[in-house]
Amino acid sequence: MNRIISRWRGALLPLAVVAYGVGLWFVPVPDGLTRESWHLFTIFSATIFAVILSVLPLLTAALLAGALAVLTDTVDPAKAFSGFANQSVLLVVSAFLVAQAVVKCGLGRRIALGVVAIFGKSTLGLAYSIFLTDALIAPGFPSNTARGGVLFPVILSLAQGANSHPGDEVGRRLGGFLMFCGMASLSVSSALWLTATSANPIGVSLVAEQGLQVTFGSWLLVASVPALCAIGLLPLFLYRLFPPGTTDTPDAPRIARAALHEMGSLSRDERITALVFGVMICAWIFAGSFNFSLAGIAFAGLGLLLAFNVLTLEDIYLQGSTLATFLWLAVLFAMSGQLNEMGFMGYVGERLAMALEGLPWLAAYVVLLLLYVAMHYLFVSQSAQVLALLGVFLDVGVKAGVPVGLMGFALLFASSYFSTLTPQGGSQNVIFVTSGYLTQGELYRLGLLTVIFCTALFLVIGTPWVLWMT
Amino acid sequence: MNRIISRWRGALLPLAVVAYGVGLWFVPVPDGLTRESWHLFTIFSATIFAVILSVLPLLTAALLAGALAVLTDTVDPAKAFSGFANQSVLLVVSAFLVAQAVVKCGLGRRIALGVVAIFGKSTLGLAYSIFLTDALIAPGFPSNTARGGVLFPVILSLAQGANSHPGDEVGRRLGGFLMFCGMASLSVSSALWLTATSANPIGVSLVAEQGLQVTFGSWLLVASVPALCAIGLLPLFLYRLFPPGTTDTPDAPRIARAALHEMGSLSRDERITALVFGVMICAWIFAGSFNFSLAGIAFAGLGLLLAFNVLTLEDIYLQGSTLATFLWLAVLFAMSGQLNEMGFMGYVGERLAMALEGLPWLAAYVVLLLLYVAMHYLFVSQSAQVLALLGVFLDVGVKAGVPVGLMGFALLFASSYFSTLTPQGGSQNVIFVTSGYLTQGELYRLGLLTVIFCTALFLVIGTPWVLWMT
Repeated sequence: MNRIISRWRGALLPLAVVAYGVGLWFVPVPDGLTRESWHLFTIFSATIFAVILSVLPLLTAALLAGALAVLTDTVDPAKAFSGFANQSVLLVVSAFLVAQAVVKCGLGRRIALGVVAIFGKSTLGLAYSIFLTDALIAPGFPSNTARGGVLFPVILSLAQGANSHPGDEVGRRLGGFLMFCGMASLSVSSALWLTATSANPIGVSLVAEQGLQVTFGSWLLVASVPALCAIGLLPLFLYRLFPPGTTDTPDAPRIARAALHEMGSLSRDERITALVFGVMICAWIFAGSFNFSLAGIAFAGLGLLLAFNVLTLEDIYLQGSTLATFLWLAVLFAMSGQLNEMGFMGYVGERLAMALEGLPWLAAYVVLLLLYVAMHYLFVSQSAQVLALLGVFLDVGVKAGVPVGLMGFALLFASSYFSTLTPQGGSQNVIFVTSGYLTQGELYRLGLLTVIFCTALFLVIGTPWVLWMT
Repeated sequence: MNRIISRWRGALLPLAVVAYGVGLWFVPVPDGLTRESWHLFTIFSATIFAVILSVLPLLTAALLAGALAVLTDTVDPAKAFSGFANQSVLLVVSAFLVAQAVVKCGLGRRIALGVVAIFGKSTLGLAYSIFLTDALIAPGFPSNTARGGVLFPVILSLAQGANSHPGDEVGRRLGGFLMFCGMASLSVSSALWLTATSANPIGVSLVAEQGLQVTFGSWLLVASVPALCAIGLLPLFLYRLFPPGTTDTPDAPRIARAALHEMGSLSRDERITALVFGVMICAWIFAGSFNFSLAGIAFAGLGLLLAFNVLTLEDIYLQGSTLATFLWLAVLFAMSGQLNEMGFMGYVGERLAMALEGLPWLAAYVVLLLLYVAMHYLFVSQSAQVLALLGVFLDVGVKAGVPVGLMGFALLFASSYFSTLTPQGGSQNVIFVTSGYLTQGELYRLGLLTVIFCTALFLVIGTPWVLWMT
């Protein structure tokens, strides 16, 4: 039976994807779309299907998609390859390399042991400590990718400290649970503060065009109840959804304290790493005021860590998987941006809006929110979807009678919490995804259920609160 | 004494580089240059010095340079990072990855054995078979290091098969001769094809900025006569320069045939690789006519090799060194381009041109070419020198009245054949150098004489041919 299924997958699924792609390619182009934008949508959606159906690995699919887009003249090469120079993409790549230093020098282990010494009596305690740390540092990190770069090495050290490794079928579950907690935490901490992710200020300026003024304080006030509920409930929810195997670790705090004692005082490399990271984080926090490039800061940090031999060239030579990430992320990022630039996203938004005419405002509100969230399957970047759809969806909602404050904030918050929907749904995910603790199937399943949970929570608890506050 | 020298290098050299950089930064900006272009030159030249003086590895220096350029507002981040999206850089990166397939599946070894089976009866015949094999497989190997990785094991087994070993003062000469043939062959086969080494596409995009358009086909046409002459004459030249002792190797063809027999017929992976490379090379050849993107073709090839499991994700994960190359190459590439765009190259070009004023253009051409080749004593990487100097030298040549096609192609070809000048003059040399068949003294002597021979040949035969063809 398994063999039949596997043969079926092996032969029929690739054929189905190819048939889908070829079929869609030659379908008459819908009115209002250019031939190029239709062909790009064909390539992009076939790529996503090929990956979702495990016909091709992400890297292979992305390379072929990029090559197809360029060689069929669908996208100009300069634009198709522009993702490689995108600063968010470069920030992901350099953050990944920089994070190795925290692991290598032992600083990550030390911080993790410190967290375990306080919260480590249970796996759930560890999960809460991740969510709490993230929520507290979030307002100072205008990039959730950068925040992921800080959290990831700590989580990796926590997992390795609990003897959880990607290769081990049972043991990996604890690491997988904590990795997904990191992704989920970033998706809700970003909804709590206006300055917690780069997509938020973009969204704020878009809703301002519809007359909704949002400040740092008003955002925090309106977000507080639903976002804090999510932070309080998500660890429990994920704990049930993906039981980490190990639940109680009563000895962990004592062992952690003993291990900390054994580590002694900070080593040279730890001190340098702490200093470099301290300066990097300060620079990231004040990047907006001083007009610093986030990726430039990461490059400086990486260069310094290499110059002081905390990281060596050999450490970089082991990072071939980062190269693979760089390749697929850059290709898909550029493609998604092009879909938007070519007007495809706006076109879809307009059609959907027309279909909603005549619905009561509450129903229109729910439908629009669900659609907005579901459409994140198509986007590799949160900012790209905010730019492409938030304005259209808010406009449609207001025209359907939804209060502008409710529709606006609901869409703004959704733009944060929908990021876990796919492994590539937010660039910060990638850091956790490539750790190898979770399979693609698990990532898609956990992502979908987490987003459904958050959407329900923000609808049920968030809606009355937002209506009361605005 | 050695210890004093080593301490001196350890402390004084870094200080000297920093002092140079800080000093130059605050020197009054020369008339005719903007502050930004002067600061960028300061960063760039300090980077090159740091690398030449072994103060910092190339990657570290490039990362710090990129970060400095961006964080000091010397270069706009979008421009500083533009090298990552540059198609020549992407071609280098994808080509490195693609070349692994030829090595891994055994196709490279099979081709080499086939040539030896036909030409291998004498030592000179073996030398010719090395040059011929190399020239034939070169267009599919945009990394001459990877090509060296294919040639080296064949050369080593040829030497050992003829009972030549590094320890034996007389017997080692045959192996030494063949090893140097490998190095010399790579240095001229790289001049024959645009896609034969990573420095070539970089050079091509640099000369394009001066208005010289070079395609795969036009490169081959212009290079053909001088490069084929070099391939025809170098084995004879090296045979006289370093007589291998043994002249006849009657058993070599038999050994090669036996090895071929043992390999059996083409494996599935070899057949797929041959097909993919065949299509890629054809596509590269006709890229100009069909407006195909060279990098797009390489992406397609890489994607197909991955899709058919000739290469696996694990093979990519081992390519961390390619990521390191990607990082430093992209940063230095963009910086070199910016130096040009900001008018610095033109400024230096004008000063140098003034110094050459009064010289007939033919003399200026010869002086510039000799200077360019001699300066390779300072560079560890061919790409680094191309990035640092090719643009300036071309500009000066053009200002001195040298036809742009002649100056451009002469510098492009020189960037290949100057690689044997020092044992570290090209990373591909290292493979042969470490075999131990040749002493450091022999390597420097053979290297200098080989480069003089090639320079003379490309000047005497190449100059009229290039002038006729461009």
